[in-house]
Amino acid sequence: MPTTTNRQWRLAARPQGAVKRTDWNFTQEAVGAPADGQALIKTLYLSLDPAMRGWMNEGKSYIAPVELGAVMRAGGIGKVIESKDPNFQPGDFVSATLNVQDYTVLPGKHLTKVDPRLAPLPVYLASLGMPGFTAYFGLLDIGKPQPGRTVLVSGAAGAVGTVVGQIAKIKGCRAVGIAGGADKCRYLTEQLGFDAAIDYKNTDVKKGLRDACPNGVDVYFDNVGGDILDIALTRLARGARVVICGAISQYNSAAPAKGPANYLSLLVNRASMTGMVVFDYAPRYGEAVREMGAWMKEGKLKSREHIVDGLETFPETLQMLFSGENMGKLVLKVASE
Amino acid sequence: MPTTTNRQWRLAARPQGAVKRTDWNFTQEAVGAPADGQALIKTLYLSLDPAMRGWMNEGKSYIAPVELGAVMRAGGIGKVIESKDPNFQPGDFVSATLNVQDYTVLPGKHLTKVDPRLAPLPVYLASLGMPGFTAYFGLLDIGKPQPGRTVLVSGAAGAVGTVVGQIAKIKGCRAVGIAGGADKCRYLTEQLGFDAAIDYKNTDVKKGLRDACPNGVDVYFDNVGGDILDIALTRLARGARVVICGAISQYNSAAPAKGPANYLSLLVNRASMTGMVVFDYAPRYGEAVREMGAWMKEGKLKSREHIVDGLETFPETLQMLFSGENMGKLVLKVASE
Repeated sequence: MPTTTNRQWRLAARPQGAVKRTDWNFTQEAVGAPADGQALIKTLYLSLDPAMRGWMNEGKSYIAPVELGAVMRAGGIGKVIESKDPNFQPGDFVSATLNVQDYTVLPGKHLTKVDPRLAPLPVYLASLGMPGFTAYFGLLDIGKPQPGRTVLVSGAAGAVGTVVGQIAKIKGCRAVGIAGGADKCRYLTEQLGFDAAIDYKNTDVKKGLRDACPNGVDVYFDNVGGDILDIALTRLARGARVVICGAISQYNSAAPAKGPANYLSLLVNRASMTGMVVFDYAPRYGEAVREMGAWMKEGKLKSREHIVDGLETFPETLQMLFSGENMGKLVLKVASE
Repeated sequence: MPTTTNRQWRLAARPQGAVKRTDWNFTQEAVGAPADGQALIKTLYLSLDPAMRGWMNEGKSYIAPVELGAVMRAGGIGKVIESKDPNFQPGDFVSATLNVQDYTVLPGKHLTKVDPRLAPLPVYLASLGMPGFTAYFGLLDIGKPQPGRTVLVSGAAGAVGTVVGQIAKIKGCRAVGIAGGADKCRYLTEQLGFDAAIDYKNTDVKKGLRDACPNGVDVYFDNVGGDILDIALTRLARGARVVICGAISQYNSAAPAKGPANYLSLLVNRASMTGMVVFDYAPRYGEAVREMGAWMKEGKLKSREHIVDGLETFPETLQMLFSGENMGKLVLKVASE
């Protein structure tokens, strides 16, 4: 095949606070060729996630940091261009850690085939991908929602939150979301079936929670941390379970994270707060795809992607997550299918 | 019986920050007579506990606040003086919510007999009482310690902490305590069999934890909150369980409690933090008394009481809890057996 240029976003500096354009280098190199057992993948869609902010920091976390100078880590959906692994043929669509670039060479064992006839490809980065799995296992395995009880989720209009609320409804719960802006809140209640949505940008969250969760919160799925976590803790019902999935409000902070001052509500209410990392559930992703795929087919679960076009827009597009501009799963389109 | 004077400590004001002498009134009234089904109890020993500070505040908690003007709530051991309940005879020793006074009239159903031949009476306020039950159920039911793993406890030289560490050893764990002062730390390692003790008043807790818990902390039993909770969170092992039993460092603070800024360690380590209130285990207290009584008999579990004499000393004696002056269970002796 002819030499093709591979554009790549590399980490230039470890950001202090908010990510700046100068924390990135946009570089080019020739595309490599696959060795035996490998395949060359063309990136079609990349998943942009709050967790990426954490990968940019130095130090111990649930996954190694991205090294300075390395291509930024990202999951994505791509198309096999050339394959020296007999399990993959040119034209196959795959999900993998493609990173923020046009092309990737990866061992076949790091690829998972996805079927574009079952769902549009970007859905495999949303409800049928990591955010969906995060919602599915976090809510069902740790939150353990019971019919008739109240499930509260923050970041409710995001990729994880939209799925959490919809699964809560499927399980017979009252679903309440916290999101920023009237549009997002309307979307949650009118399109996704949430029972109530609280606009944290324009209304008093404390009062909103009192009104929307008159019997307290049995399961709180936290994507944001900060003040909203603190307020939610004041509304816990007896025996509540708090799922700590993320803390997007804190990721850009140069200061230490704000701890939940109301954590003693856990004691008063005999409640628990448990952290989860979706990768632990990798052996069970298939189970999630099957069950959520069926819900999507029945129209019970909707996936919404917010697709922005162009690899060159990566730094600005990523920033949308932290300013809350996206509604649903933020996806960067790199090339057409 | 002749009229006897009942001295009582009543709550005069809701304290702001540290409790002051003016938050109390020391009053006297005549002792009442028991009606049918009731008994008159003479207070012998009162349990002084960190939780009392919380009962002095207004507002929702796991138990109603003490009303202004009311006799301060306290558990204690007393002697039946007169009984109109056929289940109790004068001379019986009982455990009950006697409150901070010389005499109490209570319905028989609120009394639990204790046997002075099995253990000295103050032990029923310590290892065979609420603090012991708190340690027993908090560690075993929520902490779920596994042999060979590390159990860390703060407030380790206190009534709950001493029992937590000893049960951890009985269960085959490495027991590490955090306590204030070299004397307390020596007591933990030399007398109670803790593997290590960290003196938070005179040494660097962070370094101490690194040295004492090289494989991380599998169970952290937190009695203190504040900075120590925050440091402990940085040392959690994968899948750790944090038991939130109390937060004595925060109880006297007029400001909102300091939240654990490192709570995202729960996420990174897939750990959980769970609140517990001992009263929930009331139906199982008997089980705890039997098992802990057997351990005491075998010499595996030691109970240590710090006994201060005189009802009139109550305000100053209570204060010892917050300045960390007591070693073992703080007990106020009100009268001789």
